[in-house]
Amino acid sequence: MSPVQPAARAVGFIGLGRMGSRMAMSLARAGFSLTVYDRVVDSSRPFAAAGVTVASSPADVASRSDVIITMVPDSAAVEAIVLGESGVLDSLRPGAVLIDMSTIDPNVSRKVAAAVRERGGHMLDAPVSGSIALAEQGQLSIIVGGDPAVCDSVRDVLLKIGSRITHAGPNGAGASLKLAVNIVGGLTMQALAESIVLAERAGVSPAVTVDVLSNSALASPFLKYKAAQLLEPLAPAAFTTAMMQKDFGLVLQMAREVGVPVPATAVASEVVTMACALGFGAQDFAAVAEVIRTLSGTVRPTKADTGNE
Amino acid sequence: MSPVQPAARAVGFIGLGRMGSRMAMSLARAGFSLTVYDRVVDSSRPFAAAGVTVASSPADVASRSDVIITMVPDSAAVEAIVLGESGVLDSLRPGAVLIDMSTIDPNVSRKVAAAVRERGGHMLDAPVSGSIALAEQGQLSIIVGGDPAVCDSVRDVLLKIGSRITHAGPNGAGASLKLAVNIVGGLTMQALAESIVLAERAGVSPAVTVDVLSNSALASPFLKYKAAQLLEPLAPAAFTTAMMQKDFGLVLQMAREVGVPVPATAVASEVVTMACALGFGAQDFAAVAEVIRTLSGTVRPTKADTGNE
Amino acid sequence: MSPVQPAARAVGFIGLGRMGSRMAMSLARAGFSLTVYDRVVDSSRPFAAAGVTVASSPADVASRSDVIITMVPDSAAVEAIVLGESGVLDSLRPGAVLIDMSTIDPNVSRKVAAAVRERGGHMLDAPVSGSIALAEQGQLSIIVGGDPAVCDSVRDVLLKIGSRITHAGPNGAGASLKLAVNIVGGLTMQALAESIVLAERAGVSPAVTVDVLSNSALASPFLKYKAAQLLEPLAPAAFTTAMMQKDFGLVLQMAREVGVPVPATAVASEVVTMACALGFGAQDFAAVAEVIRTLSGTVRPTKADTGNE
Amino acid sequence: MSPVQPAARAVGFIGLGRMGSRMAMSLARAGFSLTVYDRVVDSSRPFAAAGVTVASSPADVASRSDVIITMVPDSAAVEAIVLGESGVLDSLRPGAVLIDMSTIDPNVSRKVAAAVRERGGHMLDAPVSGSIALAEQGQLSIIVGGDPAVCDSVRDVLLKIGSRITHAGPNGAGASLKLAVNIVGGLTMQALAESIVLAERAGVSPAVTVDVLSNSALASPFLKYKAAQLLEPLAPAAFTTAMMQKDFGLVLQMAREVGVPVPATAVASEVVTMACALGFGAQDFAAVAEVIRTLSGTVRPTKADTGNE
Repeated sequence: MSPVQPAARAVGFIGLGRMGSRMAMSLARAGFSLTVYDRVVDSSRPFAAAGVTVASSPADVASRSDVIITMVPDSAAVEAIVLGESGVLDSLRPGAVLIDMSTIDPNVSRKVAAAVRERGGHMLDAPVSGSIALAEQGQLSIIVGGDPAVCDSVRDVLLKIGSRITHAGPNGAGASLKLAVNIVGGLTMQALAESIVLAERAGVSPAVTVDVLSNSALASPFLKYKAAQLLEPLAPAAFTTAMMQKDFGLVLQMAREVGVPVPATAVASEVVTMACALGFGAQDFAAVAEVIRTLSGTVRPTKADTGNE
Repeated sequence: MSPVQPAARAVGFIGLGRMGSRMAMSLARAGFSLTVYDRVVDSSRPFAAAGVTVASSPADVASRSDVIITMVPDSAAVEAIVLGESGVLDSLRPGAVLIDMSTIDPNVSRKVAAAVRERGGHMLDAPVSGSIALAEQGQLSIIVGGDPAVCDSVRDVLLKIGSRITHAGPNGAGASLKLAVNIVGGLTMQALAESIVLAERAGVSPAVTVDVLSNSALASPFLKYKAAQLLEPLAPAAFTTAMMQKDFGLVLQMAREVGVPVPATAVASEVVTMACALGFGAQDFAAVAEVIRTLSGTVRPTKADTGNE
Repeated sequence: MSPVQPAARAVGFIGLGRMGSRMAMSLARAGFSLTVYDRVVDSSRPFAAAGVTVASSPADVASRSDVIITMVPDSAAVEAIVLGESGVLDSLRPGAVLIDMSTIDPNVSRKVAAAVRERGGHMLDAPVSGSIALAEQGQLSIIVGGDPAVCDSVRDVLLKIGSRITHAGPNGAGASLKLAVNIVGGLTMQALAESIVLAERAGVSPAVTVDVLSNSALASPFLKYKAAQLLEPLAPAAFTTAMMQKDFGLVLQMAREVGVPVPATAVASEVVTMACALGFGAQDFAAVAEVIRTLSGTVRPTKADTGNE
Repeated sequence: MSPVQPAARAVGFIGLGRMGSRMAMSLARAGFSLTVYDRVVDSSRPFAAAGVTVASSPADVASRSDVIITMVPDSAAVEAIVLGESGVLDSLRPGAVLIDMSTIDPNVSRKVAAAVRERGGHMLDAPVSGSIALAEQGQLSIIVGGDPAVCDSVRDVLLKIGSRITHAGPNGAGASLKLAVNIVGGLTMQALAESIVLAERAGVSPAVTVDVLSNSALASPFLKYKAAQLLEPLAPAAFTTAMMQKDFGLVLQMAREVGVPVPATAVASEVVTMACALGFGAQDFAAVAEVIRTLSGTVRPTKADTGNE
């Protein structure tokens, strides 16, 4: 194996959504020779304006890049971009490294990695964690699956996107660990929902419950900003209920495949399904609290009611 | 209502277990005129040695105290100590304040409060959160239910036990909020168990998973010390599986009574029941990870295996 | 032990609700010398009209009876009637047999049995299964806990109420087995709800689903009449959602106590809590289907829509 | 649309497993001109011996048949057989009818139906319910999705396999309804497991519990033969735990897609995952009772212990 040298490195970026656009812009700012692509043409505009090359297809990106990053919504999108028509594999440079930073099915990730390997390239699954604000600052957390030497060879690129890189194991291990970590986020939200509504029905205002939790050993950054979202349901979505449903679906499938029972996750997933069915799909997944509230026959207190003591 | 003046204040403390003994000792150190009692005679020895008055019954404590604190394992113990034979009510001073700091059924708490009120006293439910180390330092967190003026009248006492006091509402609100908060602790542990074992079966060592979680937005003090416990199952128990089962039982009963569905809590409670049935009752409730591990047919990696990369 | 002779037998019946009144009337028709009592005076009217003795209290019933049957809503009612003021124990005849046919907490049942034994009587827990129609015909199913010889001594009485008597074990075993059996009823209903609404959302009318189920290996009398209820939600309640919630509460408490995890029951119980919170408490517990339907965002098809193909 | 005339009809059968071989043999006995295929060559031997034509590939079957039936383990197998190399579509006769009787993903079923339609054929999804014994007698229950006229055109064939045919709706409706019905079977088993082990721990022998259930309104043919399996765990598997896990996986995916929460099914699925992980995959899914029993710390009573009273 001989990964390309950083000096010569041209980087391609496919998928310019909410997270991807920030991550790609970090790379542009860092001075990499960048080519971008998104199937929604408008998404590339700010990059064209900044002098970044805009490709016409994933294959076009691949033909111009030593390192190609994909950041797209789901397994099907990764398969289409890499294996599909005018896909990355159509014009992969020898020794090129494909880094998929999406959160997808580990099986699909391994399948794509095998196809890339067969074509003489390298693949890493390198999903990211963190908010849009952290993406903007290049401070995401990255979990990597794949050959450690390949991971080292692109560390300079990854370090413009994230401040923390953890190598989890061979291909698929990054995707697997990302899903495992998402269990904790998903269940913490479900816990907050059950906790806050239970206290609320017992006469304790959500603001007081959030205050106690935020000053307890249970307080995490996640708890703090989600608790805010729970008190202000009109706040913009950070991670939508529909995205959580997709991730829970992947977790449950993976858990069945590797043979690990995840009973609390299974139930939390059903509550997320309820939230989607009740119309909260595009809102932040803090909406699960609204589901529990609705199911307890509780009318949401208006803002004036929730003032702390 | 005329709560007694702090100056004249004699304090009684009933229940000298792992937490209670530290809390009582803080009061002794603070210079309060203290009387203690525990049904296990040996538990009072260190107090006698320190010059603290040791009473012969809860009634004996009450006859000597303006403020009486109870810190015992469950609802039945509180009922017995206050309402039972030679109980607190037998010799309650007029205007005395009973502060129950145990985690118990809010219904029992309200019932005891009514009985105390009828006898001319005041009652607060004031359960505590925090570790034994925090108890030793008088740095617990206290949630109070009851009359705010009564709460204010004993603030000097409470501040020797805890550094943070939150008034949650009328009698029973403290007990209710404590149970609601425990949902988050119980489900976070269940989430860690499912997450770590799922990643483990996918080939990622627990140490790597814990490392990623501990450096994510999900990291809380709780996650950090429980994660350590998950990696070192022989570490001494901080909160036993049997205690978690008791608390989950109270949560589920309360949720049914006030009409709030708590589906993830209900399932986590069943996993805790599995843990008790499998013999982990006296161990830290991090044992739920062993249950998930056993149920996934996974053999626990030996310590040498779990070294980080 | 010397149970009274059947010949001399006078029977008392306490609790003349929907089931109790039918059961008591069967005994009256069978020619037993009957005394009845219900705390709602009007409930005794039809019995008075039929020449049955109406007592003024449970104690009054006991003073006139060799066999006393209780059929009341919950554990607290049984405790009050037997152990309370003017209760059965106040005037229990030596050797009298108390048969509690309510569905209650096995612990309470054992506690009452011990009190009865101490007073020189005998106690059986003998909960019944079956519909109001079966109660009317004396065709209920009876599960008995207690001394087999005592059970034999009152078999003539029991056989006027039920056509099938199963001895389950010592005191408490009848109550325990009844709760265990109720798991199957509760979960079958939950299964029907999930099945029918899932098919409905996939475009299959409930009537078709019910038709297939009713002609499958899964068809039971229960499935048949509950399926009808699922298609006709305005049908009168056979067993209310509130009653199911009470029973599930007892099941879950018992399961925790004896150390058996019942995860599916725990979740079904939460759905029943949702049903109660959404206002279906007084309706048949077939209402859980309405909960699942509501949570799937599905509007119930009007009757015209559900016609079979 | 002009389905072929019954008179001219040649029937092909692909998939000669435990169920398929019995179903195909029924068609042979009924005098249809039959061609069979199974990728395991030995499976065709009894048919060759009986004078049935054995084809060399699915395409070979299709080239000889007006009606082609597939009865295989999963969605992937159906896709491979119909759409894959040397698949049914390679030599589909104009107007031929493909009947897939497997239990598969409704999405895959619809996708295959579209491909068949494009090639000028017709497709029905027609999964079956019933035991091997019923398959032998041609007494299965068949749920059909697809064009009703196509269904009518093959009714003579279907009636040799099943005694009851229900048309559920358009393509995919048969597969969907089959999955919905399987919820009831899966949850009934879970209910039996929880019920029997709970009673067992409370001191009631499984034989007594089964006896009471078998004589209650809950008694169905399913309950009766599964109860027997629960008492005799060495009895041969009727439906394996691994098959149940596959079906639950399909149910949960479908439920997420159509937006119906199925919380009890989700939890029962996790118990089935536990059963697979604990090594019961190839045994009857009555093994979930062993999981609950293991998790309650209960040692299975030996046969001598379970004798009825």
